[in-house]
Amino acid sequence: MSLTRKLRYGMVGGGPGAFIGEVHRKAAALDGLITLAAGAFSSNPAKSQQQGEELHLDPARVYDSYEEMAEREAALPEDERIDFVSVVTPNFMHFPVAKAFIERGFNVVCDKPMTTTLDEAEALCRLVARHGVVFALTHNYTGYPMVKQARAMVQNGDLGEMRKVVVEYPQGWLATKLEDSGSKQAEWRTNPSKAGVSSAVGDIGSHAENLARYITGLEIESLCADIHTFVPGRALEDDASMLIHYKGGARGLLHCSQISVGEENNLNIRVYGTKGSLCWAQENPNYLHFRSGDGPERVYKRGNPYLTEAAQRHSRLPFGHPEAFLEAFANIYVSAAHAVEARRTGAEPDRLMDFPTVQDGAVGVHFIHTAIQSGKQRAWVDASYEPPG
Amino acid sequence: MSLTRKLRYGMVGGGPGAFIGEVHRKAAALDGLITLAAGAFSSNPAKSQQQGEELHLDPARVYDSYEEMAEREAALPEDERIDFVSVVTPNFMHFPVAKAFIERGFNVVCDKPMTTTLDEAEALCRLVARHGVVFALTHNYTGYPMVKQARAMVQNGDLGEMRKVVVEYPQGWLATKLEDSGSKQAEWRTNPSKAGVSSAVGDIGSHAENLARYITGLEIESLCADIHTFVPGRALEDDASMLIHYKGGARGLLHCSQISVGEENNLNIRVYGTKGSLCWAQENPNYLHFRSGDGPERVYKRGNPYLTEAAQRHSRLPFGHPEAFLEAFANIYVSAAHAVEARRTGAEPDRLMDFPTVQDGAVGVHFIHTAIQSGKQRAWVDASYEPPG
Amino acid sequence: MSLTRKLRYGMVGGGPGAFIGEVHRKAAALDGLITLAAGAFSSNPAKSQQQGEELHLDPARVYDSYEEMAEREAALPEDERIDFVSVVTPNFMHFPVAKAFIERGFNVVCDKPMTTTLDEAEALCRLVARHGVVFALTHNYTGYPMVKQARAMVQNGDLGEMRKVVVEYPQGWLATKLEDSGSKQAEWRTNPSKAGVSSAVGDIGSHAENLARYITGLEIESLCADIHTFVPGRALEDDASMLIHYKGGARGLLHCSQISVGEENNLNIRVYGTKGSLCWAQENPNYLHFRSGDGPERVYKRGNPYLTEAAQRHSRLPFGHPEAFLEAFANIYVSAAHAVEARRTGAEPDRLMDFPTVQDGAVGVHFIHTAIQSGKQRAWVDASYEPPG
Amino acid sequence: MSLTRKLRYGMVGGGPGAFIGEVHRKAAALDGLITLAAGAFSSNPAKSQQQGEELHLDPARVYDSYEEMAEREAALPEDERIDFVSVVTPNFMHFPVAKAFIERGFNVVCDKPMTTTLDEAEALCRLVARHGVVFALTHNYTGYPMVKQARAMVQNGDLGEMRKVVVEYPQGWLATKLEDSGSKQAEWRTNPSKAGVSSAVGDIGSHAENLARYITGLEIESLCADIHTFVPGRALEDDASMLIHYKGGARGLLHCSQISVGEENNLNIRVYGTKGSLCWAQENPNYLHFRSGDGPERVYKRGNPYLTEAAQRHSRLPFGHPEAFLEAFANIYVSAAHAVEARRTGAEPDRLMDFPTVQDGAVGVHFIHTAIQSGKQRAWVDASYEPPG
Repeated sequence: MSLTRKLRYGMVGGGPGAFIGEVHRKAAALDGLITLAAGAFSSNPAKSQQQGEELHLDPARVYDSYEEMAEREAALPEDERIDFVSVVTPNFMHFPVAKAFIERGFNVVCDKPMTTTLDEAEALCRLVARHGVVFALTHNYTGYPMVKQARAMVQNGDLGEMRKVVVEYPQGWLATKLEDSGSKQAEWRTNPSKAGVSSAVGDIGSHAENLARYITGLEIESLCADIHTFVPGRALEDDASMLIHYKGGARGLLHCSQISVGEENNLNIRVYGTKGSLCWAQENPNYLHFRSGDGPERVYKRGNPYLTEAAQRHSRLPFGHPEAFLEAFANIYVSAAHAVEARRTGAEPDRLMDFPTVQDGAVGVHFIHTAIQSGKQRAWVDASYEPPG
Repeated sequence: MSLTRKLRYGMVGGGPGAFIGEVHRKAAALDGLITLAAGAFSSNPAKSQQQGEELHLDPARVYDSYEEMAEREAALPEDERIDFVSVVTPNFMHFPVAKAFIERGFNVVCDKPMTTTLDEAEALCRLVARHGVVFALTHNYTGYPMVKQARAMVQNGDLGEMRKVVVEYPQGWLATKLEDSGSKQAEWRTNPSKAGVSSAVGDIGSHAENLARYITGLEIESLCADIHTFVPGRALEDDASMLIHYKGGARGLLHCSQISVGEENNLNIRVYGTKGSLCWAQENPNYLHFRSGDGPERVYKRGNPYLTEAAQRHSRLPFGHPEAFLEAFANIYVSAAHAVEARRTGAEPDRLMDFPTVQDGAVGVHFIHTAIQSGKQRAWVDASYEPPG
Repeated sequence: MSLTRKLRYGMVGGGPGAFIGEVHRKAAALDGLITLAAGAFSSNPAKSQQQGEELHLDPARVYDSYEEMAEREAALPEDERIDFVSVVTPNFMHFPVAKAFIERGFNVVCDKPMTTTLDEAEALCRLVARHGVVFALTHNYTGYPMVKQARAMVQNGDLGEMRKVVVEYPQGWLATKLEDSGSKQAEWRTNPSKAGVSSAVGDIGSHAENLARYITGLEIESLCADIHTFVPGRALEDDASMLIHYKGGARGLLHCSQISVGEENNLNIRVYGTKGSLCWAQENPNYLHFRSGDGPERVYKRGNPYLTEAAQRHSRLPFGHPEAFLEAFANIYVSAAHAVEARRTGAEPDRLMDFPTVQDGAVGVHFIHTAIQSGKQRAWVDASYEPPG
Repeated sequence: MSLTRKLRYGMVGGGPGAFIGEVHRKAAALDGLITLAAGAFSSNPAKSQQQGEELHLDPARVYDSYEEMAEREAALPEDERIDFVSVVTPNFMHFPVAKAFIERGFNVVCDKPMTTTLDEAEALCRLVARHGVVFALTHNYTGYPMVKQARAMVQNGDLGEMRKVVVEYPQGWLATKLEDSGSKQAEWRTNPSKAGVSSAVGDIGSHAENLARYITGLEIESLCADIHTFVPGRALEDDASMLIHYKGGARGLLHCSQISVGEENNLNIRVYGTKGSLCWAQENPNYLHFRSGDGPERVYKRGNPYLTEAAQRHSRLPFGHPEAFLEAFANIYVSAAHAVEARRTGAEPDRLMDFPTVQDGAVGVHFIHTAIQSGKQRAWVDASYEPPG
């Protein structure tokens, strides 16, 4: 996983107290391939500076706003300026920030959901195509080695034809009205002006949809969603369940919840084909279970030579030494970094160093809106979609 | 769990090769309280006799048909004739057999689903009421001690108000067209003239619905089901998923499947309330998990003195010596036996020795038909129902 | 698993409040092949009668003492008298009771450890040989289907040559001085005059040794034990750990404990060979794990057609419907019943219907005494032993 | 976890293909607090340079030998030279390297086992004391948050008095003669001139001993070990089991193995006290199980507010997002970094930012030698030991 030189990146968002910005920074740092070189960490300049100091950044590279950062980084000589930007703001800012950098030719790593509207999502697709930049969306769960193993096994035909997918992402952290008690996370995620039309589906249902699609390759044809807000006074839904018809005839069940008391981040998936089935859960991510009717259940374990190349390439430690969330997240960064280097050097990108793209982001945004709409109509709705580019 | 005398029972169905008849016999035998005394084991008299011999029954008590059995047992002196009959035929025969015995004053233990039509189900409700007999339906999973613990904890308010229920019963045994390969089980369960309008929902979805209702007390108000037949040429559905609205505002998700390759009998349930949540799975039934946001997950284990009386009363072995399917099934028999004895002696029935009733059976039959109807309409349908009696 | 006729048995021990007698009765009853026909349930005649009434036995067959029972049963016509006796008394009575019945030609099912002295154990070996009776010792854990699967896999060479065995039986029920608080179980198990020279090793360590030997076929050559009594004032050891050298070069580790707070009946074993390893745990007994370095872990599950014939023959329910402790215990009874019938009819005994023998009992008694002696000497001691017969 | 400035470190060992060097680098990088600034990565200068280039180091700081590195780093101005050195060579080089740096006043992070002889270990203790440097030994498993939780619960008295400890570290990677097939790891770990007197006990048994001591505070008084080499022709033992008496009366069982086929890095521990017990396993490290006889098992999960401060301080991610091996390893680095900064600034070290010390290292080396000696003598040996300083 080496690069010809270390890459430099800048961060927009991720100021004091933000959870996901710190995750991005650790993920980027893990392999020693990527250095944080600049940042506009908060819309509040003082907070941005404070964060920059804590991170021991050169104060000249800590900016008061993302606009300033985009402009001034673009003006730096090529061997100084950042190679890409990480956008880790609340959802509603992803679009303007990403746009500002893409238009100046910067590569982008962007948190999910990609945008709050489908128009913005499609605009990004077109911008990325026009400027030829690398754009990676941090649907981080696809970075887990055993998820890559799952995908490879589906592609190899180990499961036969797809029949049924059950994917869940229950959490319990919003079972009470946490947004009233000073939690920054809770505040913006339940606030339509910052999160968009959805809380549960947008934040975690979109991960579930992306994970299912990544592993199976299935595209949603229609869906029927039950959308509900359990906590009184909350502005967005905190629970969603949906029936899914995939193109080609497979059926699915997806549920996500923020009020499932006692659940932590229990993203899990089961995929049933005509010949075999898989199950995987992110809280214990080093194992992938394969079952058929013909023999014993097989438990695939990360780090073993019997795994597919895709799984091995995204693994850092020997078997039995567990890897977890940060390594999976880092895999998105490493793959994006390889693509950034390939763009710079004109090399052929590595097929196994894949990451979620701007099109994946548009599919996700479309999914979120469709689910919310189905919930409002209490009916099956068409959900087929082809993103631009 | 003692009785003033051993009870005698007769069996209709359960001939050579039948799975569920043998289960009923072992469950009834386990505690030494109940003796098999008579049987009409098959619609084929020779097979009935063969089964009687294998069971070392008195040949005089092995009958050629259920009608003969009902008539001749009724004619025996009270201290010889059976105390109750067990009906373990394919679904379509439950009604005529149960009716014949109830009308002669016999108590009945009946397999599920109770009948193939709602008319029959309601007729049974009225017959049971009119004749004052004991009628127990073998929704056997409610016999598990840790299921009784779960119910008690919900009733005690440990979970707060109910919010969400996720209940599943995936199996994989019908992933291929097993009904064409000589499996008696597969043949009748996928045959509308023997199983009724449904295979997956009728056979296992009804268990899931019953389990959820038993634990939570929630009644379904409306549902939206996705019903599908995956195996080409199969006459009934082999997979079903549904969204549920419960009376009082809770939401539910139920899925059952016979084509989930690699699944065995993975009935499992998660119940989320405002204060805590429970989960339980029948393949590992001695454990009940309780989680809240406030402290560590708690794992309740069968056989311990800290459990509720209901759980302790239905337990036979010390903690750590696992109990399983047969003991749970036997608990239905033991509780029914107590009710039979209470009816005979005029004693007050024991509140903790509960079992699924004829009304539970009617609710189940209504649920099956509603789910199938919703699937056909591809829409939410009203599902509220009050059985007679 | 049918027999040409039902077998009749009598029980010595198992009076009011006794745990293991009730287990034997349920295990014997489960398959409807064996009927309880007589008993001397307590050394207290009134209690014996009381137990007989509760079990609805013919009062004429409820005896005041085992001597009376042996004598009078022997005097009954062959088609009335018991086919075998079950000895479920505290340890010190196993020998005289078994002897009394064997000498009258009765077959015996006996609880473990077989006797309190090696002399008695060897005397029983000789008595069994002389009288040609069936003698089955209830090392019940060998009755589990997945234990039989494990044994078959070792015999098939799936593990290669045996290298290391780790077997444990931790319990916590004697972590406090329970024998002072009225627990009958605790009282006799910690009382040298009733339990013999050992509590932990005798009661549960002997199960662990037997399980390891059953699965691997390995015989102990020498051992070094650490024997300790943690609870002040207790007369026998409540914790033991030992290093083991097996004949042929394999090494072992065995520990058993009654003071491991929070443990229930966590008997478990891991067997490592040159090619693969197995692990199994009785608290979740339907699964057997096989691991090699070459591929995914394989989880064998009870009830599946891919299992060995031995595992399938001792299974009652379809896959996914859990079996547990009572079925395993019943398997000892069923196998013994087959041997009793084979003796009666002169048929060839069924090789797969195996059960622990009187020689196994002598090996167990020798093991118990050797472990205690090693603990006293704080040294490795020779442990090789060949029982008579 | 911030520092007043980033720390610089150099590495000795960790050249191309070395496993543990890469682990140290990732662990150090994770939090963005520590930068790799120098290295002598191999005794082969060309390989050292190659590694330096791959890591994008300044070539002037990549040295041909550790002696050169110690000398030339010491000569650099304080604001350039490394703050500490990481020693990640094979065991036999730990002592000379650490000595060279300590004598020049450098702080040291050192891999384990600390040295190959007790003389060297004690010499290091004295050197550390004399020069006042920070010395951290990477017994990395003590860095897991749930291990810190366990230690805190023992210290809080939640378990009562310690009675029994069962600690295991089985691996299977050396089940065949891997050292003959080009594995560098396998070669040096089984080579007495590089690994010292022991392979299994030295490499992994010492982790097990350290983990048990860290959690319980118990010191070994005497032990009896069974030491064995299963793979023919191997120069050091590949399997060890031992009985342990702790000071104060607790008993222990420790086993470690490199030939337990199918095991990966299954370090696990169970601690039983008079009131409760704990169990933890590193392959699934986010959970800690507490059991007592009085109530349900409690499963403590990383990242929750109900955990002790020690556990929370060493956690990076919200509950449900798993952390693993690298984070635990990084915790050793972060704690050592804090101690290095405290030494530099004269601040009071943070009591909760603990790490294994040079004395822990000496205790470990003593333990290794004592176990090997006991195995040779086939007897209990005295194992009490007090390290200098």
